[in-house]
Amino acid sequence: MFKYSFQNDYSEGAHPRILEALTKTNLRQEVGYSEDEICNSARKKILAAIGNPDADVHFVSGGTQANLLVLSCFMKPWESVIAVESGHICVHETGAVEATGHKVNVVKGVDGKITPGEIQAVVDEHYFEHMVKPRAVYISQSTEIGTIYSAAELRAISALCKKLDLILYMDGARLGSALTSSRNDLDLKELCSLVDAFYIGGTKNGALIGEAIVINNPLLKPDFRYGIKQRGALLAKGRLLGIQFDELFTGTLYFDLARHANVMAERLTNGIRSLGYGFMTDSPTNQIFPIFPNAVIETLRKDYLFYDWAKMDEANTAVRLVTSWAITEQVVDEFLNDLKKIG
Amino acid sequence: MFKYSFQNDYSEGAHPRILEALTKTNLRQEVGYSEDEICNSARKKILAAIGNPDADVHFVSGGTQANLLVLSCFMKPWESVIAVESGHICVHETGAVEATGHKVNVVKGVDGKITPGEIQAVVDEHYFEHMVKPRAVYISQSTEIGTIYSAAELRAISALCKKLDLILYMDGARLGSALTSSRNDLDLKELCSLVDAFYIGGTKNGALIGEAIVINNPLLKPDFRYGIKQRGALLAKGRLLGIQFDELFTGTLYFDLARHANVMAERLTNGIRSLGYGFMTDSPTNQIFPIFPNAVIETLRKDYLFYDWAKMDEANTAVRLVTSWAITEQVVDEFLNDLKKIG
Amino acid sequence: MFKYSFQNDYSEGAHPRILEALTKTNLRQEVGYSEDEICNSARKKILAAIGNPDADVHFVSGGTQANLLVLSCFMKPWESVIAVESGHICVHETGAVEATGHKVNVVKGVDGKITPGEIQAVVDEHYFEHMVKPRAVYISQSTEIGTIYSAAELRAISALCKKLDLILYMDGARLGSALTSSRNDLDLKELCSLVDAFYIGGTKNGALIGEAIVINNPLLKPDFRYGIKQRGALLAKGRLLGIQFDELFTGTLYFDLARHANVMAERLTNGIRSLGYGFMTDSPTNQIFPIFPNAVIETLRKDYLFYDWAKMDEANTAVRLVTSWAITEQVVDEFLNDLKKIG
Amino acid sequence: MFKYSFQNDYSEGAHPRILEALTKTNLRQEVGYSEDEICNSARKKILAAIGNPDADVHFVSGGTQANLLVLSCFMKPWESVIAVESGHICVHETGAVEATGHKVNVVKGVDGKITPGEIQAVVDEHYFEHMVKPRAVYISQSTEIGTIYSAAELRAISALCKKLDLILYMDGARLGSALTSSRNDLDLKELCSLVDAFYIGGTKNGALIGEAIVINNPLLKPDFRYGIKQRGALLAKGRLLGIQFDELFTGTLYFDLARHANVMAERLTNGIRSLGYGFMTDSPTNQIFPIFPNAVIETLRKDYLFYDWAKMDEANTAVRLVTSWAITEQVVDEFLNDLKKIG
Repeated sequence: MFKYSFQNDYSEGAHPRILEALTKTNLRQEVGYSEDEICNSARKKILAAIGNPDADVHFVSGGTQANLLVLSCFMKPWESVIAVESGHICVHETGAVEATGHKVNVVKGVDGKITPGEIQAVVDEHYFEHMVKPRAVYISQSTEIGTIYSAAELRAISALCKKLDLILYMDGARLGSALTSSRNDLDLKELCSLVDAFYIGGTKNGALIGEAIVINNPLLKPDFRYGIKQRGALLAKGRLLGIQFDELFTGTLYFDLARHANVMAERLTNGIRSLGYGFMTDSPTNQIFPIFPNAVIETLRKDYLFYDWAKMDEANTAVRLVTSWAITEQVVDEFLNDLKKIG
Repeated sequence: MFKYSFQNDYSEGAHPRILEALTKTNLRQEVGYSEDEICNSARKKILAAIGNPDADVHFVSGGTQANLLVLSCFMKPWESVIAVESGHICVHETGAVEATGHKVNVVKGVDGKITPGEIQAVVDEHYFEHMVKPRAVYISQSTEIGTIYSAAELRAISALCKKLDLILYMDGARLGSALTSSRNDLDLKELCSLVDAFYIGGTKNGALIGEAIVINNPLLKPDFRYGIKQRGALLAKGRLLGIQFDELFTGTLYFDLARHANVMAERLTNGIRSLGYGFMTDSPTNQIFPIFPNAVIETLRKDYLFYDWAKMDEANTAVRLVTSWAITEQVVDEFLNDLKKIG
Repeated sequence: MFKYSFQNDYSEGAHPRILEALTKTNLRQEVGYSEDEICNSARKKILAAIGNPDADVHFVSGGTQANLLVLSCFMKPWESVIAVESGHICVHETGAVEATGHKVNVVKGVDGKITPGEIQAVVDEHYFEHMVKPRAVYISQSTEIGTIYSAAELRAISALCKKLDLILYMDGARLGSALTSSRNDLDLKELCSLVDAFYIGGTKNGALIGEAIVINNPLLKPDFRYGIKQRGALLAKGRLLGIQFDELFTGTLYFDLARHANVMAERLTNGIRSLGYGFMTDSPTNQIFPIFPNAVIETLRKDYLFYDWAKMDEANTAVRLVTSWAITEQVVDEFLNDLKKIG
Repeated sequence: MFKYSFQNDYSEGAHPRILEALTKTNLRQEVGYSEDEICNSARKKILAAIGNPDADVHFVSGGTQANLLVLSCFMKPWESVIAVESGHICVHETGAVEATGHKVNVVKGVDGKITPGEIQAVVDEHYFEHMVKPRAVYISQSTEIGTIYSAAELRAISALCKKLDLILYMDGARLGSALTSSRNDLDLKELCSLVDAFYIGGTKNGALIGEAIVINNPLLKPDFRYGIKQRGALLAKGRLLGIQFDELFTGTLYFDLARHANVMAERLTNGIRSLGYGFMTDSPTNQIFPIFPNAVIETLRKDYLFYDWAKMDEANTAVRLVTSWAITEQVVDEFLNDLKKIG
C-alpha cells in the first residue's frame, strides 16, 4: 500500500459534480452519437468560453485518439506534421500518427517548446516531391515537461504558420493547467484566434473521460464526423462526454480544478526548494520535476508512487510529480514532511 | 417531446448499480491504462463466466473500435475478413476496417447469418496472390437483424474455420441478448471454445460505455496492447471500463439486464402480433422489426422515436423497435395500447 | 512446349520500334524521375492526341499501381469508390485500394459495365457519417470481359458523376483496343471531356512496361508527384517510360497495334463461330470468351496456353483467348485449323 | 547544353548487353508476373552468387518500392524500423514507410552508418506499449554518403540484431559499388549470412530498371508475393526485370560495371585532391563529395551537372559527383582539366 500516487493527474475518478450530473440525467433518453441535447448544451458553453461561436466542437474519449484523428483528417497522404522530440505524438502514442500514414518531422525544441526557427528550417529542408510536405505543426500547452508557451511565443508561431500555410494544432491535454498557471499571459479567447484546431483536455482535469476537439478553421471542418466514426471514436452514448463538459464549463469549474492543481504544485515546488533541492525544468504547471539523490528516491518510493524521469548524473535523478484537482494540501504537506525527515 | 424512444438500446445512461460503483470508488487512486485492481477484478469475473482462465481480456470504449482493432491486429496487410452484407463492419462503420488496410469479402448470408457454404466459396475463389487472402470470418451474435446463431450453426462454422485456418471473430455488441434469448441453445462457455476472439458488449446492455474484448487463441494474444494504444483506444482512466464490467459480472447482472430487454421485446412482439401485424424477421432478441402500414407509422411517430428499416411495398414498411435494460412493462403496454387505438 | 499462348497480351517483349528507340537513346544522359526531354516529348504527343493541352501526364510502371495511386491521391480517408464486381480493383489487385485505406462499393454491372442507376443507388444508400462517402467511380475501357462503353453510355455516366460531384476515373489498360474496336463510337478527345482522369495502357499494347496517367480535372492535379514517389512508383530512369510512349504516340503506332489485335480477335471469333461454337460475352475487343466442350479444351491445352474463365455447365466451359499486337494471321489460322480437327 | 552530368548513376539507359538480351528474347512468349523462364534463370544465378540456394528472390522496379514493400511485409502495425538520419527511407522517400503505417526511429549514425550502440539505445528506450516496438534495422551498403560498412562493423550489427530479435535489412541500391570498393573486406556470400533480407540494385548499376529483393530468413518468406501485388509492384512483363538480372549475373558483368564506376571515382578523387581540394567524406565508392569554393562551383556548373550537397562555410560547399558504369576515363580527365583551369 502507498500513501499517495503522484504518477499522474488521472488516478482518481471524476469531480463529484460530474458524478452528480451523470446520476441526475441517467434515465433521460437521449439520441446517440453526441447529437443529444446535453452535448449541444456543452458545445454552447465551450463556444462561449472560447469566444468563437462558429467553431465546431467534437467530443472524443482520449488524447491519442484526438491527435491521430485531427492530424489524419486534416492532411493528405504525403503531408507531415512537425513536432518537438518530447511531444506526445513522437514518443508516447505507439506511432499512432504514422499508423494513419503520416510522417512526423521531429525537431529538438527549447524547454519542450517548438521555435519559429525550427519550423522554418523544416519547411526549408523539404522542397520537392522526394520528401514529405510539411503541413501541420503540433504543439502542446502545457508541454510534456510542464512548460507553457507565452503569448508572444504563440503569436510568433501562429503568424509563421499562417505565412507558410501550415495548420497549427494544439494538444490541450493539460490546457486548463496552462491557462491557470501563474505565469500564463494568454487567455482562451486569444488562443482560439491563434490556432486552427485544438482540444480541451477533460481526462486530466476532473472528467472521467473525454476531450473536446475544437476546429476554428472553416476549411478543416467538413466531414470531420466521418473521420471520427471511421477511427472508432464516435461513442454511441456520446451523452457521457457531453455531460462532463457541460458540467466542467458550468461556471468556472474547469478552471477552478486546474488552478487547484497548479497551486498544489507550486506549494510542492516551494517546499522542495526550501529543502535545498533543485529542478530539471522550471515548470509553472501541475507537473514538476525535482532532482533528488537516488537514496532519497528509494526511501520516498516506499510510500509514494511517481515516475523517474531522467538520470541527471550517477547519484541524482529527476522524478516527475503530478498534482491534480483531487489532491489536498494535507497530502502535499505530509509529503514535504516525509521528504524533510529523509534529507 | 416524445413518450419513448425505441431507436436503440443506448438511449439512457447506465444501470444504477454502475453509477453506485463509480461513486463508491471515485476517490480511490488507481494506476492508469486498465492495469488497475478494478480492471483485474473484472477480468477475473469474466474469465470465470466464460470458463477460460487463460483468455486475455481487454476493455475498449466502443464496438467499431473493437472491430477495427481486432481485425487489424490479427491480419497481415493482404489478408481479408469475410462478412455478411448486413454485417456492422460492411455498412455502418464508415469503412473502418478498410481504413486499416483490409478488404472485407462480402457474402449474402441467410437471416443475417453467414453459412459454411459461403465461407467455403470465398476461400475457393481466392486462390493466388492476385487476390486477397481470406483470413478471418466476422459474425455478430445477435445479428444486426435480431437473429441468433444456433449451437449447431456456430459449431459448423467454427469447425470449418479451424479446418481452413480462418480466425473466427464474433461481434458481441448484443451478446447478452443472444445468450438470454428464449431460443438460445449455446452457453457462454461453449461459445468460447468455438471462436478465436469476441467482445462482450457493455454499451448496449447497461454500461455507460465499454466493450470487453476476449482473445482465446493464444497465437493472437501477443502485443495486443500495442494495437490498442496505437489506435487511440487505450483509456487513461481504464478504471472507468473496469468498474462497469466488474459490476455487470457481479452476480448475474449482465444477464438479468439482457433478459429483461428480451422479455420486453417478446411482450411487444406478442402484443403487435395479436393486433394482426406481421414481422420482417423472426427475432428472438431485443430488436424486432414489425411491419406497419405507412399511415400507422406516421401516427406512431408523433409519440415515439424509432427507425424505419425497410420498405416492404408501397403501403407498408418494416420499422425497428429496440428494447433495453431500462424499458418498463408500463411503456410496452402503453405503446401497444396506442397502437391498438390507431389500428 | 506449346505452340502459342493466348493467356494475355503481354507475353512478348515490346514492339521493335520501341527497342530501336531504347537503343538509339541509350547513352544520352537525361535527368531522372520523368523530368527528362524524352518524357516531355511523349507528354506533348499524348496531349495532342487527347486534345487537352492542359492535362497532366504521369508515367508509371503498371495498372494496379496506377489505380491505387490515383484513387488514394484523389480521395479523403472516408471516401470510397464505386466499381462493378468484375472490375480489376475488386478482384485482381489483392486489395490494393483497400490497402490505401479506402472501401470499394461493389455493384453488379451489366456486361461488365456500371450503369447510372447503380451509381445513383450507391449514393442514395450512403447518406450519413456512419457510412463511407462515395466519391469516385471506377470504370474500365475496355472492360475485364472485353466489352466497351458506347459514347451514349459514357456520356450518361459522366453527366451523372458531374451532377453528384463524383470523380470519374477510367482504367485504360486496354484503352487502345476499345478505341479501335469496330463497335467503338467515341474518340479519345471526347473521352477526355467525359472523365476526370484515366490511364493509357502501354504494357498490354506493345510497350515493355508502362501506363500514362492523364489528369484532366485541375482540382486533382496538385502534388500528384508526391503521391507517385510515396507509393514507390517514381522510376529513377523515367526515360524508360517516356521513350516508349514517345514512340507509341509517334504517328499512329499505338492505335495500329491495338487495331491489329482487334482484327485478329475478330478473325478468331468468326472462325470459332463458323465451327459452331458460342461465346460467353459478345466482345468487340481483343479478349474473347468462346465456350467449348471440356474435352475440346483438354485437347487444345496440349498445344495452347489460355485461361479457363467460367464453367457454363457440367460439359462446357468458357475460356479466355487474348490476342495482341504480336500475334500473326498464321497463328490464328493454325489455331482454327487445330480446333476444326478436334471438333 | 552540358558536357557531362555527374548528378547520378542513372543518367544513361542500360549496358549494351542488356539491350541485346532484350532484343534477342523479344518475341519469345513467356508467362507473366516474374514466373517465366528468364526470371527463374536470373534467380538461379543470383542464388549461386550469394551462396544461399534457399533464399527467395523477387524482382521489383525501384528502390523506394523495395524498401516500403519489405518493411511493410515484415512488420506488424506497431513495429518500427531503426535507421540513420541520412538513410534513404528517412529523407528521400516522401514518407513511404510511414505511409504503410510504420514509424522510423531515427539515429545520428557515424559516417552515414548505424552503430550497435545506437541500435541498443533505441531498443532500450522503447520498453512498453505506449511506444512503438523496434523490430527492424535499415542499413544501406554503400551508404547515402558513399561510405561502406566493414566486415567487422556488419558482423557486430548482425550479431546484435540476432540477439535482440531485430530484422536486419540492407538497401543495396549501390551494393555493387560497395562490394567492389577497394576498401571492401566482405564478400556477397558472407553478407548473406549477416542480413535477413536485402536488395541488389540494378537501376544504379547498368540496368534500365530493377532491383532484386533477396529474403534469406525463412520466417519472412511466406506470402511475400501477395505484398508485391498489393503495393502495385508486380510487373505483368516480369521478364523485363528477369532479363536484366540474368544478364548482369552472367559472368561478372554486375561487378565489372560497379568496379568501373569505383575506379573512375577514385581517379576523380585523386585528381581533385592533387589540385588541393578536400572532401566532405572519405568515400571509397562511386559517390564522392569534394569541397570547392563557391566561385569554382559556379564556373563548373556552366559545363557540368551535379548537386550541391552541403554548405561547409560561407565560401565553400561540398558537391556530390557520381560516377557510373557508363562514364569514360576521357570524361574524368576532361573534368579534371577544366577544374585545373578554373583554380
